[in-house]
Amino acid sequence: MEPINLDDKFGRIGEHWRPKVVAALNGQEIKVVKVQGTFPWHHHDDEDEFFLVWKGRFRVEFRDRIVEMGPGDGLLVPRGVEHRTAADGEAEVVLFESAATRNTGNVVDERFTAPDGQRI
Amino acid sequence: MEPINLDDKFGRIGEHWRPKVVAALNGQEIKVVKVQGTFPWHHHDDEDEFFLVWKGRFRVEFRDRIVEMGPGDGLLVPRGVEHRTAADGEAEVVLFESAATRNTGNVVDERFTAPDGQRI
Repeated sequence: MEPINLDDKFGRIGEHWRPKVVAALNGQEIKVVKVQGTFPWHHHDDEDEFFLVWKGRFRVEFRDRIVEMGPGDGLLVPRGVEHRTAADGEAEVVLFESAATRNTGNVVDERFTAPDGQRI
Repeated sequence: MEPINLDDKFGRIGEHWRPKVVAALNGQEIKVVKVQGTFPWHHHDDEDEFFLVWKGRFRVEFRDRIVEMGPGDGLLVPRGVEHRTAADGEAEVVLFESAATRNTGNVVDERFTAPDGQRI
């Protein structure tokens, strides 16, 4: 029951697209991730995902539209919905999702699929 | 799949200690709440709770210690652990917890127990 600080957690991340778990509760995980560039298209069969932008500009692309977000903006992506995430500059994003959700969902990508359950 | 903005959501709240749901996913809810003063002691039998401070100073008190927090600080309170929350000035807090978690947990309090499932 020690508090965490998001800026401290983000400050320890030196790579993009590798979510790190900062808390686990009720079968869910809260993760922090630094992103830059464009992530592969994917969906999650059984997990809803919530993105909260902490710093920078971040977007979630769907096949028919793009949602642009900045700090304090959040977006729920329901299970089954194909999407990809992107950021032109570096952005810091908080994720809320089921424990052990694979970041690339239904896709295994040599570059982007990250190990599960890495704490920071 | 419309984005939300936390500052916008907090700006619409005119009362203290009444959490409002801004997103629901995987049986969980993300809520926003404005607080000031001291909440009753309580615990949640079956739900873990995560607090993320958005603005102001906020504290979580346990029977044996107090955790003081500011913006960007987060704290997980595991199920079963007695606690109360407090803020001397007004604070804005984001909550992550199981859907329909009663804010006063095992306690029903005429003043503080809030209706479940109120969206904003």
